[in-house]
Amino acid sequence: MSGNSFGRLFVVTTFGESHGPALGCVVDGCPPGLPLSASDIQTDLERRRPGKSRHTTQRNEADEVEILSGVFEGQTTGTPIGLVVRNTDQRSRDYGDIKDKFRPGHADYSYQQKYGIRDYRGGGRASARETTMRVAAGAIARKYLAERLGVTIRGYLAQLGPITLAAGQLDATDDNPFFCADPARLGELESFMDELRETGDSIGAKISVLAQNVPPGLGEPVFDKLEAALAHGLMSINAVKGIELGAGFAAITQRGSEHRDEMSPDGFAKNDAGGTLGGISSGQDILASIALKPTSSISVPGQTIDREGKSVDIVTAGRHDPCVGLRATPIAEAMVALVLMDHYLRHRAQNADVAVSTPALKGR
Amino acid sequence: MSGNSFGRLFVVTTFGESHGPALGCVVDGCPPGLPLSASDIQTDLERRRPGKSRHTTQRNEADEVEILSGVFEGQTTGTPIGLVVRNTDQRSRDYGDIKDKFRPGHADYSYQQKYGIRDYRGGGRASARETTMRVAAGAIARKYLAERLGVTIRGYLAQLGPITLAAGQLDATDDNPFFCADPARLGELESFMDELRETGDSIGAKISVLAQNVPPGLGEPVFDKLEAALAHGLMSINAVKGIELGAGFAAITQRGSEHRDEMSPDGFAKNDAGGTLGGISSGQDILASIALKPTSSISVPGQTIDREGKSVDIVTAGRHDPCVGLRATPIAEAMVALVLMDHYLRHRAQNADVAVSTPALKGR
Amino acid sequence: MSGNSFGRLFVVTTFGESHGPALGCVVDGCPPGLPLSASDIQTDLERRRPGKSRHTTQRNEADEVEILSGVFEGQTTGTPIGLVVRNTDQRSRDYGDIKDKFRPGHADYSYQQKYGIRDYRGGGRASARETTMRVAAGAIARKYLAERLGVTIRGYLAQLGPITLAAGQLDATDDNPFFCADPARLGELESFMDELRETGDSIGAKISVLAQNVPPGLGEPVFDKLEAALAHGLMSINAVKGIELGAGFAAITQRGSEHRDEMSPDGFAKNDAGGTLGGISSGQDILASIALKPTSSISVPGQTIDREGKSVDIVTAGRHDPCVGLRATPIAEAMVALVLMDHYLRHRAQNADVAVSTPALKGR
Amino acid sequence: MSGNSFGRLFVVTTFGESHGPALGCVVDGCPPGLPLSASDIQTDLERRRPGKSRHTTQRNEADEVEILSGVFEGQTTGTPIGLVVRNTDQRSRDYGDIKDKFRPGHADYSYQQKYGIRDYRGGGRASARETTMRVAAGAIARKYLAERLGVTIRGYLAQLGPITLAAGQLDATDDNPFFCADPARLGELESFMDELRETGDSIGAKISVLAQNVPPGLGEPVFDKLEAALAHGLMSINAVKGIELGAGFAAITQRGSEHRDEMSPDGFAKNDAGGTLGGISSGQDILASIALKPTSSISVPGQTIDREGKSVDIVTAGRHDPCVGLRATPIAEAMVALVLMDHYLRHRAQNADVAVSTPALKGR
Repeated sequence: MSGNSFGRLFVVTTFGESHGPALGCVVDGCPPGLPLSASDIQTDLERRRPGKSRHTTQRNEADEVEILSGVFEGQTTGTPIGLVVRNTDQRSRDYGDIKDKFRPGHADYSYQQKYGIRDYRGGGRASARETTMRVAAGAIARKYLAERLGVTIRGYLAQLGPITLAAGQLDATDDNPFFCADPARLGELESFMDELRETGDSIGAKISVLAQNVPPGLGEPVFDKLEAALAHGLMSINAVKGIELGAGFAAITQRGSEHRDEMSPDGFAKNDAGGTLGGISSGQDILASIALKPTSSISVPGQTIDREGKSVDIVTAGRHDPCVGLRATPIAEAMVALVLMDHYLRHRAQNADVAVSTPALKGR
Repeated sequence: MSGNSFGRLFVVTTFGESHGPALGCVVDGCPPGLPLSASDIQTDLERRRPGKSRHTTQRNEADEVEILSGVFEGQTTGTPIGLVVRNTDQRSRDYGDIKDKFRPGHADYSYQQKYGIRDYRGGGRASARETTMRVAAGAIARKYLAERLGVTIRGYLAQLGPITLAAGQLDATDDNPFFCADPARLGELESFMDELRETGDSIGAKISVLAQNVPPGLGEPVFDKLEAALAHGLMSINAVKGIELGAGFAAITQRGSEHRDEMSPDGFAKNDAGGTLGGISSGQDILASIALKPTSSISVPGQTIDREGKSVDIVTAGRHDPCVGLRATPIAEAMVALVLMDHYLRHRAQNADVAVSTPALKGR
Repeated sequence: MSGNSFGRLFVVTTFGESHGPALGCVVDGCPPGLPLSASDIQTDLERRRPGKSRHTTQRNEADEVEILSGVFEGQTTGTPIGLVVRNTDQRSRDYGDIKDKFRPGHADYSYQQKYGIRDYRGGGRASARETTMRVAAGAIARKYLAERLGVTIRGYLAQLGPITLAAGQLDATDDNPFFCADPARLGELESFMDELRETGDSIGAKISVLAQNVPPGLGEPVFDKLEAALAHGLMSINAVKGIELGAGFAAITQRGSEHRDEMSPDGFAKNDAGGTLGGISSGQDILASIALKPTSSISVPGQTIDREGKSVDIVTAGRHDPCVGLRATPIAEAMVALVLMDHYLRHRAQNADVAVSTPALKGR
Repeated sequence: MSGNSFGRLFVVTTFGESHGPALGCVVDGCPPGLPLSASDIQTDLERRRPGKSRHTTQRNEADEVEILSGVFEGQTTGTPIGLVVRNTDQRSRDYGDIKDKFRPGHADYSYQQKYGIRDYRGGGRASARETTMRVAAGAIARKYLAERLGVTIRGYLAQLGPITLAAGQLDATDDNPFFCADPARLGELESFMDELRETGDSIGAKISVLAQNVPPGLGEPVFDKLEAALAHGLMSINAVKGIELGAGFAAITQRGSEHRDEMSPDGFAKNDAGGTLGGISSGQDILASIALKPTSSISVPGQTIDREGKSVDIVTAGRHDPCVGLRATPIAEAMVALVLMDHYLRHRAQNADVAVSTPALKGR
């Protein structure tokens, strides 16, 4: 209820601060009999891990996950899966500045107003380090979806500041530090980031996630439409300011005759819907995109207030991502996986014994 | 769990189909002692009601609400508030066509795949008529927020197809059938809609909602950030394909030094955040926008399949909104009200005894 | 969250006061394709209805239920089922006495302390009239359980004050106003109640509910063990002060060698467990019993306080049940049905694809 | 949803198996600003810890708790509190027997039927070792309730097999291994247990918990009455077969004039209700009692089946509690604390701004 759980049936509860002893989570509701080992999770954590290129934060964390429960002889047992990742690189330093000042664009001020106290070290709970456990839990969901249903979930960088990118080569995203599916543009991205870093400033980005082979029927009308759940999950990622499905904001200027995806025995004619009809998956590909703001942790000086409300200047020192969008792809994929997994179980709970006579259409 | 409830503490559960006997809802968790009568709710229902101009569906529903419980001697008692609106204009006609065919862009196909059965009359549960009860419940939330906290929530049409509109005169929105805050452009909107209607086609729209005087501290990190809850609620409205907060998708091309809202004893310098920091309200204005797709109920013929999966043509006859965005403003306001109300109670549950020494900043 | 919903997947939300316009509920999560009509529900309502014998309250309510949604062409559609029962016999009278005094043993004082306001007419929300909707919702659950799984749920009066009763003839319970399965003792019960009524006093009772053919596997360890859910549901019925499963409180003096139910290929040797092992149904019969206190609405004068906290005498006039236990059997059955239905869906959500090689044992 | 979380606002999610690497939990929703250290929790864990007398299991666990998050500079921050206790004494041995046989009275058979797989080592998730984290989380709730509201929660052994015990000296319960408040009877208890141990058999017990200074207003009618929440929480403890509040099952034979607790400006005349009226705390003492069955882990041979369903004999070797009731007192106290804490937050969420003019009565 205090917001640290996600999902209704496949429920992930996370805990941990940036500079505390550990991050952890509990995954409750995982079906039994799924083969699972720490290395299954580690693979996805590795994709999110900081410090892999010069374009991301230089904080160096091994992010080694330990499974504390819920797995026996290599299989899930249906009992809760406890996961923990110890923090190792909590660099000792003086936090005096951010202890008493509220960084603009950060959660410092709002946490103080809400709780009257905050763990200011590295942003505490508001640090993007929290997303580690989203990726860990998402890896379990993703494995089930892939093995049992054949669902694939792949994200990519769709835009970096002014540079828009194609989605042509999804298999290439893991081969570069940008999760870019348009490898011909990699040089352009490198140059942009190098120039940006010199200014001490940061930049926004757009990430898209494509989920394929999603079975029809997922999503609970009316308030828990699949797109509402996706919007909830994706908007809960740090720095996200917008989300769209399929045509998204472009639908504003479309005509109905243009937007609707016609159907035939061969499948859907196109995919402007982004994978849902009436809040329920149609068998079309799920395509969701998110807008990430530029991080506010920059070395460009800014004006703010201190704990007494007095005017002060601030410069955010330390190790930061000049574009949080660069490491957001595995996180967005994880949230999509968690939503789909949860809704698969929800759908099956109510409708496991439904017989459907209409053949399922091929997606697109 | 099957998606017909919204909120955790201020919980709205709705029921009802387009052509069934009635629509209804239960509002559970409303604080006691709030003055409430049917007319308080009727006012908002009236704003959403169809058939008020030639630009919306000509279905004629009185939408008269009855309070069945939870109010005693003119005040809420803390027990659940039951509301019901009888359907009156369920025009008797032959549903043969949509009974056996799946309208493209509609929920027909996905409901059939999910449940194996569907109430095809007027779209059944997937009809926009369902939003009646969102508005009714939202009216209660809005009243509490206004009377106890001084919160105001006002929506407006930000874009109709290609026509973008200013937000200059929020007080004018209730004086025209478009909820337009840019009254100089009303003639343009009228002409556009008249021409559109002749083509039998439909158009998308963008709606924005502004909430002012929202207290700081609302929102539950990390998964139930205030923006995540807003995204969930707004994306659950029929036809919504995108949501953004503050700068939204424009944040992609912003620099951090540009996006962050600096603070001083005089308040926030500007509002690109859209009202939240780290998922918690900052005291800035909440500004959320949604993209609505053009309705798929058009008289332009299209291709689809029937229940056996065979190829057929379809024309959607009947009374429909050529722009669902035109009536969406009160619905979007209602969802924002429900989110804020729920999060106000959630915040107070955990933090009612918190003493904050830092003065609250003026929003913007 | 404010306590008017029951269940996680088969969710019942009720509303309504004793003397308000109506009682109602929403049943969300019912699987689609279940044949359902108002008469299916009416049958169970009839069993609970007041005024059927001289031993229960003489309030005369038709308790006619209307289905407002969720059923189409005689079948559930998977969308929420709205039910409403209008109150008709809200006898007009002066409530002056209970308006300003708190009846001892009643909810008057605690509602006032909690909400600062209460609908004092007939007990308002705290009236046993609220249980009408439990029975209505329970009828739907019971129908699904019976038709799809063969589960039968039968309650009976196990004790009336000092008179303990056998459970020998469960088929006889609907043939007498006591839900007594020991018809040879009916004369004794009649005499006891007639004498009691003359004193103006009331008496406690014990009700047992037996559920048979419950599939193994229901119940969610560790906090939502099946017995915990049953305890929750049964203890939430007005006037219940105790609950036990199987041997119950008698287990205190048992030895382990005596209590444990041995197993063999022929099934369980006996049933002291009451149907669960480790919080999960074993296939044994579920046997739950509840203790109901004597109603506090009696004509024997008593001492209490008024709204200013001053000492006053009180006599509760009006139409009341001298033994609330007499009408509690259908309510207890309904709660057991709701728990089993909810847990069946919960079990299936997580474990629908589990293959079990061990043969299921015959229950007892 | 899979049953490993308890509470709605003060939410405890536990994980861990008897012989896995660790037990842990997440406490979400704790108000910020509560002074908290590991030693606050350790004190309660110590009271539950096995191996402290010859009458309990000889498994030797340090049960040393580590706080992984949610506490900063000695105070809770409002973010989730992660706790972990490493298992240390997982004695290596051959589990062959219980691997392939289902112990009667144990969860072996039902877990296998539910999940198709089970961690059979020491009972896995169904082991009473799971309750460690209930006590840990309960310690936090208890501390808040004591410091902020003055609530005290004290449990005691009310009956051991045939020996019924007085509740006269609650301060003495921590001075003996039985949590007995009737120290004159300690010799009798010692003898009984010594004789029992020689038979290899086990015995049931009754535990009572008394909560004092509970504010009026806690409990959410109608389904989440305070007694329903207590019943849920207490019945979820391993081996509990019954629960009663106040007069409990004795209310069956009471008259209404005898049961009802009269009120006067001096307070309640007595306490048969057990602390609630209409499901809401009245300010009277909460008095809840539970019946615990004799453990089924005994060395008396019994008949059962194996995984193929064939008939086999079984003797449960290993280190077991001959009376699980002996160590259940801190666990029952913890569950009561969790229920009260959760309901305090729930009450405050809805009713924080309620003004009550009627003076609160003194409890008893």
